[in-house]
Amino acid sequence: MAKEVEGFKFEQRHGKERVRVARVWKNNQGHHFVVEWRVSISLLSDCLNSYLRDDNSDIVATDTMKNTVYAKAKECSEILSVEDFAILLAKHFTSFYKQVTTAIVKIVEKPWERVNVDGQPHEHGFKLGSEEHTAEAIVQKSGALQLTSGIEGLSLLKTTKSGFEGFIRDKYTVLPETRERMLATEVTALWRYSYESLYSIPQKPLYFTEKYLDVKKVIVDTFFGHPKEGVYSPSVQSTLYQMAKATLNRFPDVASIQLKMPNIHFIPVNLSNKDGPIVKFDDDVYLPTDEPHGSIEASLSRILSKM
Amino acid sequence: MAKEVEGFKFEQRHGKERVRVARVWKNNQGHHFVVEWRVSISLLSDCLNSYLRDDNSDIVATDTMKNTVYAKAKECSEILSVEDFAILLAKHFTSFYKQVTTAIVKIVEKPWERVNVDGQPHEHGFKLGSEEHTAEAIVQKSGALQLTSGIEGLSLLKTTKSGFEGFIRDKYTVLPETRERMLATEVTALWRYSYESLYSIPQKPLYFTEKYLDVKKVIVDTFFGHPKEGVYSPSVQSTLYQMAKATLNRFPDVASIQLKMPNIHFIPVNLSNKDGPIVKFDDDVYLPTDEPHGSIEASLSRILSKM
Amino acid sequence: MAKEVEGFKFEQRHGKERVRVARVWKNNQGHHFVVEWRVSISLLSDCLNSYLRDDNSDIVATDTMKNTVYAKAKECSEILSVEDFAILLAKHFTSFYKQVTTAIVKIVEKPWERVNVDGQPHEHGFKLGSEEHTAEAIVQKSGALQLTSGIEGLSLLKTTKSGFEGFIRDKYTVLPETRERMLATEVTALWRYSYESLYSIPQKPLYFTEKYLDVKKVIVDTFFGHPKEGVYSPSVQSTLYQMAKATLNRFPDVASIQLKMPNIHFIPVNLSNKDGPIVKFDDDVYLPTDEPHGSIEASLSRILSKM
Amino acid sequence: MAKEVEGFKFEQRHGKERVRVARVWKNNQGHHFVVEWRVSISLLSDCLNSYLRDDNSDIVATDTMKNTVYAKAKECSEILSVEDFAILLAKHFTSFYKQVTTAIVKIVEKPWERVNVDGQPHEHGFKLGSEEHTAEAIVQKSGALQLTSGIEGLSLLKTTKSGFEGFIRDKYTVLPETRERMLATEVTALWRYSYESLYSIPQKPLYFTEKYLDVKKVIVDTFFGHPKEGVYSPSVQSTLYQMAKATLNRFPDVASIQLKMPNIHFIPVNLSNKDGPIVKFDDDVYLPTDEPHGSIEASLSRILSKM
Repeated sequence: MAKEVEGFKFEQRHGKERVRVARVWKNNQGHHFVVEWRVSISLLSDCLNSYLRDDNSDIVATDTMKNTVYAKAKECSEILSVEDFAILLAKHFTSFYKQVTTAIVKIVEKPWERVNVDGQPHEHGFKLGSEEHTAEAIVQKSGALQLTSGIEGLSLLKTTKSGFEGFIRDKYTVLPETRERMLATEVTALWRYSYESLYSIPQKPLYFTEKYLDVKKVIVDTFFGHPKEGVYSPSVQSTLYQMAKATLNRFPDVASIQLKMPNIHFIPVNLSNKDGPIVKFDDDVYLPTDEPHGSIEASLSRILSKM
Repeated sequence: MAKEVEGFKFEQRHGKERVRVARVWKNNQGHHFVVEWRVSISLLSDCLNSYLRDDNSDIVATDTMKNTVYAKAKECSEILSVEDFAILLAKHFTSFYKQVTTAIVKIVEKPWERVNVDGQPHEHGFKLGSEEHTAEAIVQKSGALQLTSGIEGLSLLKTTKSGFEGFIRDKYTVLPETRERMLATEVTALWRYSYESLYSIPQKPLYFTEKYLDVKKVIVDTFFGHPKEGVYSPSVQSTLYQMAKATLNRFPDVASIQLKMPNIHFIPVNLSNKDGPIVKFDDDVYLPTDEPHGSIEASLSRILSKM
Repeated sequence: MAKEVEGFKFEQRHGKERVRVARVWKNNQGHHFVVEWRVSISLLSDCLNSYLRDDNSDIVATDTMKNTVYAKAKECSEILSVEDFAILLAKHFTSFYKQVTTAIVKIVEKPWERVNVDGQPHEHGFKLGSEEHTAEAIVQKSGALQLTSGIEGLSLLKTTKSGFEGFIRDKYTVLPETRERMLATEVTALWRYSYESLYSIPQKPLYFTEKYLDVKKVIVDTFFGHPKEGVYSPSVQSTLYQMAKATLNRFPDVASIQLKMPNIHFIPVNLSNKDGPIVKFDDDVYLPTDEPHGSIEASLSRILSKM
Repeated sequence: MAKEVEGFKFEQRHGKERVRVARVWKNNQGHHFVVEWRVSISLLSDCLNSYLRDDNSDIVATDTMKNTVYAKAKECSEILSVEDFAILLAKHFTSFYKQVTTAIVKIVEKPWERVNVDGQPHEHGFKLGSEEHTAEAIVQKSGALQLTSGIEGLSLLKTTKSGFEGFIRDKYTVLPETRERMLATEVTALWRYSYESLYSIPQKPLYFTEKYLDVKKVIVDTFFGHPKEGVYSPSVQSTLYQMAKATLNRFPDVASIQLKMPNIHFIPVNLSNKDGPIVKFDDDVYLPTDEPHGSIEASLSRILSKM
């Protein structure tokens, strides 16, 4: 998208971030559904004059983008996935404005979960959960699509079946080797679907909502292993790879997955003074820390035969 | 606790905040339990010389307080409630140091929840939930106790059965009356138990952990009402009062409860330009906001006959 | 303010928080002034029926409170201190509404500072600074006033002239004694003025704005001491006390001051492995931490002879 | 860096984030200097076996990376710029470990500023300012370098000389045109230097520290214009472009600059009810908002003739 202007190379985009919208649907039985979305829109468009001179005639005002979010939410008369709403918005911007060549719409869904009262799901009552579902649709004027879903803030902890041994030892190395430690992380996952056009995405309602839950389940289950035996993790790297591979193996329409898994350290507590030990660690008392943390990230992709 | 020094009235306290500790217990069947606590300690003590001159001989170093958290966590060979750990720590400081007259220990427990894999609870796998359990123990050297438990960050939303009518209308009033709106809040609850001495608290293990879950259930159920019909809320004030009253009525050993319930506004979206309406609200599209928010708070207490 | 209702003791308040307003003034020379305030209002009022039954007839809607902030900001045709605006708002609520017995208005001012360009103050250009100025006015219907100003987020650091020695040593003590350490804190200061009535406050424009700058200067100067020699701090406690005393000694209309000064630790770095030291500390390399931190707080007040 | 593994394409990196270090230097005159850095390290390295099997023999432990930060800070016997420290660290990792092909070191410097007491700079006293200086060095084993400096959190506001007119009007457009509005933003700037090798960087001490201050001054001055007249901004886009162009024109060794300038809205307040206006806007009362905000970002680069 780089242009040459005044002897320089120039790239630009503009949009609106943190547009918040909630949408309620009610079915005939009085059952309510609610979503709360935080929408970010970014447009690649031909509007150089707004940068170079006092001429905004090719600019979509960001206030207009915000209004469009509400107008399009209104038009959605049936509940839809956050992915479908991202696509719908991005498609609008590329088709409605001749200046817009690409629209990037990223949405974070707040995890409102239906409550149970007296063992029954409540008709119109919701409680906020923890990790968040994200979706990003990148749509070109041609109809070309990149669709990525994700999870943010999925904090997982296992109290055993984790170790770290045999790593490089040099003059800066202090860390002891171990086959028994806590393993904690806050997973950020992003997976791209293989649908490459607006016209090839599944039409089944809430298809991507269900897929999100399925992918999350595979990620969580792979991290923890069998409910009784668990699964030994020789490194965050190894566990991350198993999670990525399980996702691609299980879901044919996932083209690639990126995982960020900070190693959030629970440090064994050993304390002593000159009179002797105050606390002697026995896999029992830990100091949880936020900083520093290890950062392990990787992406695994299908290799596509391009013809 | 005010003293007179150099012609002024003087009050002081010192302590350690954000001491983080995790404790793991394992039973004979290989079942693991984990808690993660963020501990704040504040001591009222006779240590004026540290303020008035270069004499720290009556000061408990805050580093020592931190070490004590780890030493005491180590000593807990059986799983215990966050309330019992707060009491245990506060009691230690008032009994171990002659200078300490009162210890205030506040703890926030991170909501690690056991995961299910293949429909079974996992032996050693945990996932972070949302709202947090808090406990505060204030212990005097005499053994006098104030014990307060709480919930932080309990976000609730209902999509109907809420209104606000008949309030004062004056020249600054714009808000329309309504019998149909969203109601959203983030509940902070603090309830004080009636146990007024270290020697009268229940000895049943995890008594306060169960009580926390019970109080939370009463709060949530009262907010939402029956799973089919719900319950109409004529104001946040009224709903808050019902929640407080239900708690005191249900739990004889809760002496008082304080509730803070910000009114988190979901604003109906109506948009129009000179050509007419863009979005016309029909109980469907809302703008969720964080600021400003209403702030409604109240406390309800038993009246004790003092003899 | 506690009332008896349905056999319980009941206390309540309601208001609006995080009402944001900016106000611009322009003088005849084209010089602009701007303030940005985040206002919180809390009213104690006779409105029990809103809690006990479906009757909101005594309730000031929090939306109305918000509108009032804008209406009153509009009415301020001359620049005024954040303290004067807090008083003006609080006075309005107690005088305008018969139900309101007490109004508590707390405001945080964002630190917009005029920029210099080419060595000259800019007519209309501002940049955000760091620490924030706060004000709280509590006004009764009678005209009784409590006025408190404050500073939040004033982070100070000195690289020497600090120590901590001679404290209690016991079986939980590890901390070595030292006469040479970093001292870092984030000061929160709150000082109450001696004006106890709406009718006794100074009428000089920007009186409290200037006073804020003067108090901040005394606090900072006392913390650091002489620019060449500095001043030795034997403990955070001692430094805090000196800062509080200097404030009361210098400003006759300050009735009391409260200081919170967390001890933000810069930990000496010593690292070694079995082959010997990796880093040996020599007052040079530190690990700065946010948690845990010491918490030292105290208040110093004039003793008033009550007749 | 992508490899093929088990039939998939695989990319990975690992490192340590939020390593905090402070370094103090003292000159012969007793003048102290202090920096506080938050370091993130990310290594591209040949360590696939740690992902694919229980073999960590090619892994640099992230704990070792952390220790290296302290060891290298210790070795810096003279004060140095954050850029030079980033380069020094990155160079170490690529030269010390045969497995490491690329090291990415990103550092944020906390804005500790020397205080003045009695009009004199203090020998050892510092206060936290606002915006932060960042540096990122990417070093290849070959010695190839990418060096990027930046500013984060530079909040700027001008109360006039800003407008937005002539933009696209369509059925979703509500925003009125104006030649008089507030303009507020929080600038994030990143500029890449033209030095492409470890062996070509300037050897002058604190070269990059001074450059940082110079670039910041150009950015700020261009935003605000002349101290009396200011400069009219027809759009955030136009102002951003002027800032980027001024930077490239002024600093020959800056190869490119990226600016992110959210449009932080100060909304004119107009309020009315059925009885008429409550507040009528006259360039005086504004509602400042954090969300939503416009997002305008662009990068401007020199075009290099590649031979």
